[in-house]
Amino acid sequence: MPGVISSITILNAMQNAEGKIRVIIQNLSTEINGGRYAAKRVTGERFEVKADIYADGHDRVRAFLRYKAPAARTWQEEEFEDLGNHRWAAAFTPEKQGFYTYTIHAWIDHFATWYDKFLKKQRAGQFLEVELLEGAAFLRKLADSAAKTKATALNKAATLLDDRKKYEDAVNYVISADFAALVKENPLKTNETRYPGELSLWVDRPKALFSAWYEFFPRSAAQEPGKHGTFKDCERLLPRVAAMGFDVLYFPPIHPIGEKHRKGKNNAVTSQPGEPGSPWAIGSKDGGHDAIHKELGTLADYKRLIKKANDLGIEIALDLALQCAPDHPWVKEHPEWFIWRPDGTVQYAENPPKKYQDILPINFECAEWESLWQEIKKVVIHWVDSGVRIFRVDNPHTKPIPFWEWLIAEVHKDHPDIIFLSEAFTKPRVMEGLGKAGFTQGYTYFTWRNNKQEMMEYMDELVNTQSREYFRPNFWPNTPDILPYFLQNSGPNGFVNRLALAATLSSSYGIYGPVYEQYVAAPVEGKEEYWDSEKYEIQQHDWESTNRLTDIITLINKARKENPALQSTWNVHFVEVHNDNLIAYFKATGDKSNMILTVVNMDPHNTHSGHLQLPLKEMGISGGVKVTLQDLITQDSYEWTEEWNYVELNPHVIPFHLFKVTVH
Amino acid sequence: MPGVISSITILNAMQNAEGKIRVIIQNLSTEINGGRYAAKRVTGERFEVKADIYADGHDRVRAFLRYKAPAARTWQEEEFEDLGNHRWAAAFTPEKQGFYTYTIHAWIDHFATWYDKFLKKQRAGQFLEVELLEGAAFLRKLADSAAKTKATALNKAATLLDDRKKYEDAVNYVISADFAALVKENPLKTNETRYPGELSLWVDRPKALFSAWYEFFPRSAAQEPGKHGTFKDCERLLPRVAAMGFDVLYFPPIHPIGEKHRKGKNNAVTSQPGEPGSPWAIGSKDGGHDAIHKELGTLADYKRLIKKANDLGIEIALDLALQCAPDHPWVKEHPEWFIWRPDGTVQYAENPPKKYQDILPINFECAEWESLWQEIKKVVIHWVDSGVRIFRVDNPHTKPIPFWEWLIAEVHKDHPDIIFLSEAFTKPRVMEGLGKAGFTQGYTYFTWRNNKQEMMEYMDELVNTQSREYFRPNFWPNTPDILPYFLQNSGPNGFVNRLALAATLSSSYGIYGPVYEQYVAAPVEGKEEYWDSEKYEIQQHDWESTNRLTDIITLINKARKENPALQSTWNVHFVEVHNDNLIAYFKATGDKSNMILTVVNMDPHNTHSGHLQLPLKEMGISGGVKVTLQDLITQDSYEWTEEWNYVELNPHVIPFHLFKVTVH
Repeated sequence: MPGVISSITILNAMQNAEGKIRVIIQNLSTEINGGRYAAKRVTGERFEVKADIYADGHDRVRAFLRYKAPAARTWQEEEFEDLGNHRWAAAFTPEKQGFYTYTIHAWIDHFATWYDKFLKKQRAGQFLEVELLEGAAFLRKLADSAAKTKATALNKAATLLDDRKKYEDAVNYVISADFAALVKENPLKTNETRYPGELSLWVDRPKALFSAWYEFFPRSAAQEPGKHGTFKDCERLLPRVAAMGFDVLYFPPIHPIGEKHRKGKNNAVTSQPGEPGSPWAIGSKDGGHDAIHKELGTLADYKRLIKKANDLGIEIALDLALQCAPDHPWVKEHPEWFIWRPDGTVQYAENPPKKYQDILPINFECAEWESLWQEIKKVVIHWVDSGVRIFRVDNPHTKPIPFWEWLIAEVHKDHPDIIFLSEAFTKPRVMEGLGKAGFTQGYTYFTWRNNKQEMMEYMDELVNTQSREYFRPNFWPNTPDILPYFLQNSGPNGFVNRLALAATLSSSYGIYGPVYEQYVAAPVEGKEEYWDSEKYEIQQHDWESTNRLTDIITLINKARKENPALQSTWNVHFVEVHNDNLIAYFKATGDKSNMILTVVNMDPHNTHSGHLQLPLKEMGISGGVKVTLQDLITQDSYEWTEEWNYVELNPHVIPFHLFKVTVH
Repeated sequence: MPGVISSITILNAMQNAEGKIRVIIQNLSTEINGGRYAAKRVTGERFEVKADIYADGHDRVRAFLRYKAPAARTWQEEEFEDLGNHRWAAAFTPEKQGFYTYTIHAWIDHFATWYDKFLKKQRAGQFLEVELLEGAAFLRKLADSAAKTKATALNKAATLLDDRKKYEDAVNYVISADFAALVKENPLKTNETRYPGELSLWVDRPKALFSAWYEFFPRSAAQEPGKHGTFKDCERLLPRVAAMGFDVLYFPPIHPIGEKHRKGKNNAVTSQPGEPGSPWAIGSKDGGHDAIHKELGTLADYKRLIKKANDLGIEIALDLALQCAPDHPWVKEHPEWFIWRPDGTVQYAENPPKKYQDILPINFECAEWESLWQEIKKVVIHWVDSGVRIFRVDNPHTKPIPFWEWLIAEVHKDHPDIIFLSEAFTKPRVMEGLGKAGFTQGYTYFTWRNNKQEMMEYMDELVNTQSREYFRPNFWPNTPDILPYFLQNSGPNGFVNRLALAATLSSSYGIYGPVYEQYVAAPVEGKEEYWDSEKYEIQQHDWESTNRLTDIITLINKARKENPALQSTWNVHFVEVHNDNLIAYFKATGDKSNMILTVVNMDPHNTHSGHLQLPLKEMGISGGVKVTLQDLITQDSYEWTEEWNYVELNPHVIPFHLFKVTVH
């Protein structure tokens, strides 16, 4: 092949090395805002990257996903598979917590291109002597950069292709399965396109994806009526929480409660003497965010509670609520972190015309924001050092998103196992933005999605958009702040329905438990707030009793633990049921070794029935249907031999089926 | 307000200046692949940018689109408007050709926030003395950085707000329209978020968006049967092309045609003596891509043709087909640009098992790619210097996309008015990729979208996805390569139908004219290719005759020129018609001063009728309907006074309505 050295050395539009590059790599499914944010997975969870990979012409493109584990020095790679229409996919399963790095390399593989063409010409009966010589040249080129044993084999193959006397042997060799494997295993990389930039994948521990939360007020944990509950009382309740199958126990703030402008029962503007106030009005003469409310106990008590909980498989989540009561120590010690008005008073929270004089917002735009950020980090690290591994963050959407991004990254540097749940009941972009900024999980709009259509659309949004890469939903049927209209009118069946939906649609869910279990449904008139809200008073719960709901919770949580299909949210697949009141969805593990079919009657008052279509493709069924369905709640068992099957659910008995599916 | 200087100086995760920044700017509608590619507009065409802009909390966000014209030194700006759900939009209209630069600045406007809250509190009857002092402080802050006259006015306003004795006057002033305007006109910028990176907008001349193409083979332009047409013959045909209303005249390649392996009539592998060969087999002993086929004339003839065409409002488009006949001069002079096989022969084109020995592909991956690129650029500049302003690029999808990106950018540096039409009938990603790389217009799948549903879906893809930012469609019902199955079976009515659709759906369209006008429909059996294709022979056309179709073409092109609503593709809005064979769409200018409603019968054989719904909102009608529709083809006029109206189209008369709409 003749060679002429070019005299052109300056090309304005591109670097010299780029001129021969032909492959384009674009539109990575896991690239969030141009790589500005990391995608998220947990250890052991498959990470799939899809990308548009294409070039001019019809030559064979090959591509590899290259990735590096946290602190690893070497890159690993997985080859991309062509999905058609220039969309490709490759995947790996991260095994370590922390930041993985990944990128894509792709190129025109001239050896593979030659091979594809050779096969077509051979099938057309063409004489391929020149083609064999070309193949030999490729084999020698591969040998040049191969390890010794491999190089020897490649050169030997080249010799055969070169030998005109062995034309038939050579052709037979090239069309053999051995040679196909040789092509696959010997990528000939030339003029690689390297995706510009390395992207990040943040890997959490498994609980980030799979968790069952139970919330109660520790001050209501006392056995004796009228007494203030303590951490020791909470210890007594741990076995009950564990027996129901919850693995995260979350308390509202445990810090000293402000005395100035303290709220009274039912959110009264002034409190009566002896009223305990809202635990979210943090800070008093007794201390601020790093202190413990005296009546709950000591730091040592709290640490012991954490230890005892851990022994039962439960983690204690701390509430991080960045706001101050007027008597919080920071107001005096750090007046620069607050807004002072021209009349010399400190600015309280307002949503005009409403005023919240019991809460001072922190001024994140203050000149001394650096000391503020460091102090908050100190608070978080204090609790981490005390054994807290999970933070439920109160109203993060009223504090700057860049602050959260910094804080979570800082904490994760030394503690990649820390989980942050975002309580952001706000507009979609902000909710998502907090996920991008690093929150491990987020509260969702599940709380207000009541009918079948709404629920399917919302799940589609969560699961089938890029949001799935960074926003992990945590479904709550109620919270101390929210008693949804649906539950106000549904009766006990509605509580069962919402619990079942939350726990089987989402792999993370939670309840504000004591009142939920008792079907408490009395609101402040016209509002989605609890009458006699526990936020403003100490209550007495019957911690001994069980009922239909507690039994069901226990069975559902058991099913969740025993069935890996329920340990992901991303695998939900809705199936057809001919009744708008019946919703049905299928979840399976990637290898189909575990399969769950859930059917829920969305109407808490009436029995509904209809025909349901088994998702044959998702179940791996191609021939005749023979399926056993075992209801994990009732233990009833069914054999289905048709694609369409009749289901009927009476909400007064059990408003849902939770079927473990076995395909025969 | 107390001040404490922070001692913290190191923050790992962010730069110091970023700490107070609260606004996030993301998901710009016009940002293509993270800003890697420019959006496109023509001069005088509105450029709207949408973006997600949000912050924590409920403070008032304000944002500006900042932009700079080519070679301008100063930035201009337009304020963003809140569309709801954290989506914002701003727009400007570029007036110069070349690269505009743009970016976004956004911030929390504390003055506007204060103002919003003040109004709410005032309406609630609160006492606002402290609020007035706060307002005065904001006004003084604004005055600090304002020009003298403005500063004086702002300080004067502050004095009023400060004056406790004039409380009522001050409140009345703040709630006045004057004060609302003051807030609007005085953005208080603090802690601005500046979108990271400046994005590009490429601005073409108007013809890039609005053009009507006519294609014929100049060698078939002779008046005398059997003679080889010349550029002089073409001059004679210019008035006819102009009279029909076309403004781009495109010829297949005009270069010397290869003699080696020349193709014969109907794509015969060998040609008979005297056969002219395909003009796309470029290069012979007479020259290559910078030469002119002798029998057509001289460069001087070509330049004169261009001049005469320009005088009639027509531009001549040159075909840029980067491939070589075996006797192209480059093969001898630059053997390094081709692939040489082990047997010493040069690699011809193949699509196994097919062989195309008459065409040699250029090896863009050769070591001497730089000299190759420069030579091609030289060829293009040669033609630009000869007066060519439009290139129709043959099969760009078989040459590297980065090469095109470089070439187009290089040519545009000194010649921003050059238009490149991509003839890439290939897969979607590559078609789009060429648009991103800089092609001004592209051929499309219109050629194969036949029924109403297909057409609406395809338009939706072109107009309502990000593709609209960089891919300008050019609709061709036929080309010398493609006689679609639809036209093979539709009869003349189908030719009228496809012409009307192409010319009214897309603001750029074209036809391979002489055979289209004569309803030529004879294919190579079973293929979408012309029998007796003009690609391989000289033909004789009746350039004098007119018929129903030529009359309609003339009227449609006239309507396109007179109605700005038809000069854009992006404004298409489909309207409801209760008949699957009738498609209807509405186009209006931004100010609704020009409105066109088109209705097409998609069935070339049968009359269809149905009721059509006027798009009242798009027509700006809120009350009673009173509309005049003037058919620009038949000149018939209709008065409609209902939202739903009956339409009927007999394809044997006229298969479409092209209504100019006047709202009374």
